[in-house]
Amino acid sequence: MTTITDIAKKLGISAGTVSKGLNGAKDISEPLRQTILETAVEMGYAKKKTSKKEQKKLCILIENMDYYMKDDFGYDIILGFKQAAFKESFDAEVIPTSHEFQRNHPYDAFLLNQNCSGAFICGFAFDDPWMEDLKATNVPTVILDNFIKENPTVGSVGSDSDEGIGLAIRHLTALGHKKIAFLNGSKGSAISEMRLEAYEKNMRLQGLEPDPELLAYGHFVSAGVEEHVQKFLAHGATAILCGNDLIAYGVMAECKRLGRSVPEDISVIGYDDLPSSAHSNPPLTSVKQDRSKLGKCSYYVLYALINEVALSRNLLRTTLTIRESTHRLIPAAPDNQAQR
Amino acid sequence: MTTITDIAKKLGISAGTVSKGLNGAKDISEPLRQTILETAVEMGYAKKKTSKKEQKKLCILIENMDYYMKDDFGYDIILGFKQAAFKESFDAEVIPTSHEFQRNHPYDAFLLNQNCSGAFICGFAFDDPWMEDLKATNVPTVILDNFIKENPTVGSVGSDSDEGIGLAIRHLTALGHKKIAFLNGSKGSAISEMRLEAYEKNMRLQGLEPDPELLAYGHFVSAGVEEHVQKFLAHGATAILCGNDLIAYGVMAECKRLGRSVPEDISVIGYDDLPSSAHSNPPLTSVKQDRSKLGKCSYYVLYALINEVALSRNLLRTTLTIRESTHRLIPAAPDNQAQR
Repeated sequence: MTTITDIAKKLGISAGTVSKGLNGAKDISEPLRQTILETAVEMGYAKKKTSKKEQKKLCILIENMDYYMKDDFGYDIILGFKQAAFKESFDAEVIPTSHEFQRNHPYDAFLLNQNCSGAFICGFAFDDPWMEDLKATNVPTVILDNFIKENPTVGSVGSDSDEGIGLAIRHLTALGHKKIAFLNGSKGSAISEMRLEAYEKNMRLQGLEPDPELLAYGHFVSAGVEEHVQKFLAHGATAILCGNDLIAYGVMAECKRLGRSVPEDISVIGYDDLPSSAHSNPPLTSVKQDRSKLGKCSYYVLYALINEVALSRNLLRTTLTIRESTHRLIPAAPDNQAQR
Repeated sequence: MTTITDIAKKLGISAGTVSKGLNGAKDISEPLRQTILETAVEMGYAKKKTSKKEQKKLCILIENMDYYMKDDFGYDIILGFKQAAFKESFDAEVIPTSHEFQRNHPYDAFLLNQNCSGAFICGFAFDDPWMEDLKATNVPTVILDNFIKENPTVGSVGSDSDEGIGLAIRHLTALGHKKIAFLNGSKGSAISEMRLEAYEKNMRLQGLEPDPELLAYGHFVSAGVEEHVQKFLAHGATAILCGNDLIAYGVMAECKRLGRSVPEDISVIGYDDLPSSAHSNPPLTSVKQDRSKLGKCSYYVLYALINEVALSRNLLRTTLTIRESTHRLIPAAPDNQAQR
């Protein structure tokens, strides 16, 4: 178990200073206090309960999202949420769920039983049984990358796809690309719908009419992209924008298998900017979602909901991390002309 | 000047309890503490500075929005913001601005001078000089009903127009209306663009193709609606959805002047649900923006931005307040048929 001494050692400060930071003493600087609190949460420090009568607890309900390892999509989201919550004396507990578990435990009853003031939901899809319960829940709940209509108790958080996809498309058009294909994530997910809308809108803003032949749904994984890539190339795509980084890895592999080099022949852009995208071959240009901040803003939105302020949709800014998978369009050589 | 005794008197509790509430003592209940804090702000109580070295201050920058009287659109927004900020020991000061003032004071320099940690901007339009400064500001800023692209320091807050307009259109279609006109606010404002998009989307969701003849921009005031109303009626409108309540008051007056009764001949819906809409003739059905909560969530978003969590767009839920200005569609009598 992590002790105050462990935290002090990691930060190179005295145990007394760590203790002050954890207890909100006024004679240390605010930035140092923040660092101490964030490090404590990251190291798994559990504060002993103080004199406060009621313990404040939040649940992080997770399904279908990896979060154990630093490279996993969910790792920094969970950590960011816990860090922001901890600063306001909320304990946040991760509870993995499954369809079966959800079917056997009505949402509100389960959270009441857990003595939870609110919940943060990650990785859910339309077909999760609790999605139905959420339409009428009374428990303040924030859901990542999804949306529940007309229930003032449930708010939604995600990255600003419109801005992120816009950055990607403007980057590609500035490099001379016009035939920009979009290999989206799974059909029927809220986030895929938003990104499709963002793709079409931002293509038109650049004066490019979206071509249905350059548009496809895949899945949020590397496998199974072959058919789509072949079709895109046959229809003259010079750049492929992908619904996430895993898809982009699959797309780059398939391009290479077909003898097309990335980025000289085909530019590829991912979405998420996973840590591993700095090390892919070539390193991937990607729309960055700051996952730690996605976790933190989920806490802030949940805090508003707990205070009966009914935030509905909330979007976090994205940025574009430009690496080596995108390149200025090289006009096709005459013998390739027929293909393009 | 408001004293602890004044607050105690208003709430019917002892001055000692008020003092505990203001000082965060642990032996009073959380709901009571919240009530004490909110009442203190509402009564204009100014807490004496405590031992904290740094005073935390926020600015509310306002233009072109009334906020002095309880009925004014801005009153509850400002109050809600101040109440939420006060609970976390932020003082919030209202600073009215003008185009001239903005031109003479660069935004960041002005706020630095004011020793402000962040700002909340209300009532600004595209042509306010500071809108240009906001593209590159480093001061955490929340802007109401407007949006600044790609600056992670500026977040946007507004009501969820898509959901609000959707509620209004579904209410009208459930009453049998199909010819639903939309008299929007001023052209070229961010909020008008969002509401137009919401109108078109929600009409289509009801299987109704938006008719360009039933669509117009006005201004966010009662005056000057005559021409639009006459055109809508000539094109068979049976219901008119308005960009705000003030427009709706003008629309109802013009309908009556033309010998059409509201709601029997024409249903009218406003947007905002101002306090005065309960007393209009007839009382107005309106999409409610909870202005106090709009102010509160603006503070929460600003708090996230101050903590370097770059929220961009944030929407607050709306509800529909149904009063007497909407009515089931009455089929036209034969001699009116030609007109409809």
